[in-house]
Amino acid sequence: MSESGREPEIRLAGGIVPPLCTPLTPERELDVPSLEKLTGHLLGAGVHGLFVTGSTGEVGYLPDRTRQRVLEVVAGVAAGQVPVLAGVIDTATPRVIEHARAALEHGADALVATAPFYVPTHPAEIAVHFREIRAAVDLPLLAYDIPVSVHTKLAPATVAELAEDGTLAGFKDSSGDLDDLRSVLETVDTERFLVFSGSETMADTSLRLGAHGLVPGLGNVDPDGYVRLHRAAGAGDWARAEAEQARLRRLFEVIRVGARPMSRYSSAIGAFKAGLVLRGVIEHGTTSTPMIPLDDAELAEVRRLLVEADLLTGGSNQS
Amino acid sequence: MSESGREPEIRLAGGIVPPLCTPLTPERELDVPSLEKLTGHLLGAGVHGLFVTGSTGEVGYLPDRTRQRVLEVVAGVAAGQVPVLAGVIDTATPRVIEHARAALEHGADALVATAPFYVPTHPAEIAVHFREIRAAVDLPLLAYDIPVSVHTKLAPATVAELAEDGTLAGFKDSSGDLDDLRSVLETVDTERFLVFSGSETMADTSLRLGAHGLVPGLGNVDPDGYVRLHRAAGAGDWARAEAEQARLRRLFEVIRVGARPMSRYSSAIGAFKAGLVLRGVIEHGTTSTPMIPLDDAELAEVRRLLVEADLLTGGSNQS
Amino acid sequence: MSESGREPEIRLAGGIVPPLCTPLTPERELDVPSLEKLTGHLLGAGVHGLFVTGSTGEVGYLPDRTRQRVLEVVAGVAAGQVPVLAGVIDTATPRVIEHARAALEHGADALVATAPFYVPTHPAEIAVHFREIRAAVDLPLLAYDIPVSVHTKLAPATVAELAEDGTLAGFKDSSGDLDDLRSVLETVDTERFLVFSGSETMADTSLRLGAHGLVPGLGNVDPDGYVRLHRAAGAGDWARAEAEQARLRRLFEVIRVGARPMSRYSSAIGAFKAGLVLRGVIEHGTTSTPMIPLDDAELAEVRRLLVEADLLTGGSNQS
Amino acid sequence: MSESGREPEIRLAGGIVPPLCTPLTPERELDVPSLEKLTGHLLGAGVHGLFVTGSTGEVGYLPDRTRQRVLEVVAGVAAGQVPVLAGVIDTATPRVIEHARAALEHGADALVATAPFYVPTHPAEIAVHFREIRAAVDLPLLAYDIPVSVHTKLAPATVAELAEDGTLAGFKDSSGDLDDLRSVLETVDTERFLVFSGSETMADTSLRLGAHGLVPGLGNVDPDGYVRLHRAAGAGDWARAEAEQARLRRLFEVIRVGARPMSRYSSAIGAFKAGLVLRGVIEHGTTSTPMIPLDDAELAEVRRLLVEADLLTGGSNQS
Repeated sequence: MSESGREPEIRLAGGIVPPLCTPLTPERELDVPSLEKLTGHLLGAGVHGLFVTGSTGEVGYLPDRTRQRVLEVVAGVAAGQVPVLAGVIDTATPRVIEHARAALEHGADALVATAPFYVPTHPAEIAVHFREIRAAVDLPLLAYDIPVSVHTKLAPATVAELAEDGTLAGFKDSSGDLDDLRSVLETVDTERFLVFSGSETMADTSLRLGAHGLVPGLGNVDPDGYVRLHRAAGAGDWARAEAEQARLRRLFEVIRVGARPMSRYSSAIGAFKAGLVLRGVIEHGTTSTPMIPLDDAELAEVRRLLVEADLLTGGSNQS
Repeated sequence: MSESGREPEIRLAGGIVPPLCTPLTPERELDVPSLEKLTGHLLGAGVHGLFVTGSTGEVGYLPDRTRQRVLEVVAGVAAGQVPVLAGVIDTATPRVIEHARAALEHGADALVATAPFYVPTHPAEIAVHFREIRAAVDLPLLAYDIPVSVHTKLAPATVAELAEDGTLAGFKDSSGDLDDLRSVLETVDTERFLVFSGSETMADTSLRLGAHGLVPGLGNVDPDGYVRLHRAAGAGDWARAEAEQARLRRLFEVIRVGARPMSRYSSAIGAFKAGLVLRGVIEHGTTSTPMIPLDDAELAEVRRLLVEADLLTGGSNQS
Repeated sequence: MSESGREPEIRLAGGIVPPLCTPLTPERELDVPSLEKLTGHLLGAGVHGLFVTGSTGEVGYLPDRTRQRVLEVVAGVAAGQVPVLAGVIDTATPRVIEHARAALEHGADALVATAPFYVPTHPAEIAVHFREIRAAVDLPLLAYDIPVSVHTKLAPATVAELAEDGTLAGFKDSSGDLDDLRSVLETVDTERFLVFSGSETMADTSLRLGAHGLVPGLGNVDPDGYVRLHRAAGAGDWARAEAEQARLRRLFEVIRVGARPMSRYSSAIGAFKAGLVLRGVIEHGTTSTPMIPLDDAELAEVRRLLVEADLLTGGSNQS
Repeated sequence: MSESGREPEIRLAGGIVPPLCTPLTPERELDVPSLEKLTGHLLGAGVHGLFVTGSTGEVGYLPDRTRQRVLEVVAGVAAGQVPVLAGVIDTATPRVIEHARAALEHGADALVATAPFYVPTHPAEIAVHFREIRAAVDLPLLAYDIPVSVHTKLAPATVAELAEDGTLAGFKDSSGDLDDLRSVLETVDTERFLVFSGSETMADTSLRLGAHGLVPGLGNVDPDGYVRLHRAAGAGDWARAEAEQARLRRLFEVIRVGARPMSRYSSAIGAFKAGLVLRGVIEHGTTSTPMIPLDDAELAEVRRLLVEADLLTGGSNQS
């Protein structure tokens, strides 16, 4: 679909495409060495793509130059081994197009955009929005359905229409609505249009329904688990996929460690980063302002859950 | 409160502070001459401040450099006659601080920021958010309560706490919750803390409850009406204020002209800009992508309402 | 409007129409003597009507026969001195009509009904709903706009249409949307159609906007305060009305005493009933299952607020 | 769990438990012969239980005596062949208990209750609510999770707690949240606690996740389809279950035939009843006031979808 002249083109495919955490220094600057290590950690696990500057990547907090630097670093490490998808997240079309142009320039193989938010919107305008982004920047475009953040839900009929006319190359569902996911899969040409689920906990079910791939935030902490789940599903070994999913569901309890007044996002992103620190992948668990950092009791709970999931040995004390 | 060394300081005060529309050319570039004329039109009506890059100013659509240029142009025309407030609207703290720094540089006298959006948030994080913005840029900071866009409501207790500790210099209510507005007015020091209402239609009531000022989008089209309303209220002539409000309530029906599938924002911003074209203030009614433009029937309805409100003569045909 | 042949007809009018609490024994049976005393307490304060089986009256908890008994008792005590309005609250038309028939039989002078709830609904169906209720039972019908309970908002245009065609005799706003309240007042014939506000805290503002009356739950505890507020407003003495309102706003903090896990309704109804016990009007503060009863600390806070509002002397220890 | 002394006890089990439509005459009275035929139609298809006075049964519209008569008629026809579950749907505990007592008297084998609605509620109160219902009436109690109607979601932890202490015998999910359904299945004792899905369109997935049974409204129109789907799932023949589901998903488009202004419920219930008329099971498609009846074009679309699903022959003209 992309004919931007860049050669050889990285073909967008399904599989495990983790939404990368964005490692920060204690001063809240981008921690480039940690980001490089994280990218290597994911590639080493055999993931099939890398999604930068998504919600898990704290995109809503990152200044533009940091977003671009993240993409540049990850695309540099990936070096064409797997496609790099870039979230181009902003309130409305002209601002999104600015991000899309920057993403093209900094090495993205595909773009992921939400419906407009903050500004009131309407399905008729959402369709214009995606068409204008697609027309402005020649990269495959995926629609990112994340009602918890944008407060509108993409109707399967809208997705189907934008798939049909070539605006969209794919769809990432972070709504949790598996019924709508199935409707999309029933109506698009699944040979040409890729459907991803953002669910950590219904990954096996999503694949069973025909989804091409997964974009699990928890895949930062345990990419091997998701790669195994995906491989089992691909082989039709659903019992094994379900067993892996059951383990990952228990591990996903990390997102609930934050017991003091804080957003659930503070808890989840804090826990993913803490898990990466505990596993020795990144240097610091620092999250962006104004998120509330996890305290020692909460971090101990993250450790406990990692031990239970066989990602750490209980005796070690490496936090 | 500001000690930025810029002299002479423009003191932020109450009164009529219209949120300026952002005139665009048919190619959707900033129409600087029209923006200058609009600023002059408002100053000529005797407004007490100018609020740029707010929701009415299509801030969610404008790229950063356009936001900055708008501020620069308006501050240039205002030339210290009245304070210029700049909306620094973005998803979370680090991005908002970038806008705040740019606003300081381009001539803002005060900043207006919302709670975080897109990213999940929590009252504990909202307080950190405003404190960090205030700490980063030395300009008076107003909290902008606009739940329809950000999907959280600022609790009066949070506003009071941030007023008390000097984080906030004021509050702009666009929630429509007059009970909460009253609670804020009951708990802050109204000698030092400014409360604005964003309501076009409950302006008289807001002033009666003690609000210091108004930020009405419709004030682009009819600034004289709001200046008269404010003057009557200041003189305790509530009957006159209510009569003016009644006329402005009828005029505000312009926001509902859009009868085809479109967001209510397309209808409202389209109508304000059409009204400014009809009144000869700006050149084009163009709105940002992906808003749906008003059609001829809808524009005729805008004209009819302006004639009814005595802002146009019925015989003229100047559209 | 009612031509039911009952003579002499009690004319529905504006003024203070408290929504009566429903006193219960510790065994959660209707406490008839307390209900009689409460009715007398309100009539003695000079209220202009009595509203039974509304939300404040725990209508959602009361079995049908209790609802009917409440109405019977209150209508008996009122004995034609003031009109008795009955809430006929249920999920959809046929069930509401059953309540309406029972209310006619047990002494109601007017009916108060919400839009359908639990069942999905639509404005086109809401209009049918009110028309069918009006056609079935010949009593003046008021629409009760309470989105927090029914999860739809009555559009002013719908209210105006149903006022125009004689379906509705009035409207009770418990939405808190004063802008819509004003729209209703602008479009109905206010000589024939009565508009009530259910707000405890914006009562003066509602009257200033033209509302005919008030239905404040807090009016159980302090009917004299609302009668004074209404009298001041009627005399155009807005400063006095606002001062009374300010005192009542502080008293209304009673609804927030419930600090443990409970619904805000448990807190509010518990506090109103506790206030009535403290003032010696009813015997027990018991609320319906499954509401959480207030504990001693919470009750002490109710007492403190009553003392502050001059409804109790601080030295007494009558709880 | 039930020790009501009624012998022989009907054991509640999983399987297909359709929520029966409530046939009405054109005068909107209960059509008893049609209800008897519908019950026979379902039993003939081999369903495993019957659920009366649920949302599909228009419970929100039916007066108490109609609810009781429906139960009596269906229990009479069922005659102990399969358990009969009765929805005891009302706003809060005391009213629900009244329905529960009536249901026990009129032949229910189990009760299905929602969280409180209309009245504000809280998880702490929801737990009390179910415990009080269970204590009052000795029949197995299922929690009915239907946020679209009651506007709260039952947390899996609440369900697990009420399962653990014996309050609940089962859970019916009509939230569409398969992730939560899975959490419930992971935490309860699935030997003793029954989990049903109310989804027409994710029935295969729900069974795959471990649900014991299905309560599909569309099962009125095509009980054989759901019985086949359930049988295939029970045999581990997931390909066959998915194929049946795919056909039923297409048929479920009947709920969207209503293209004029009406609630989606008018469309869905109208379509189910129209389908039953077309299939010769019930006499009239009449729905309760204030639902909007389907018009001829909408009915033709229902027919078309039934023909496509092989439930009618295209040539016939039996509507």
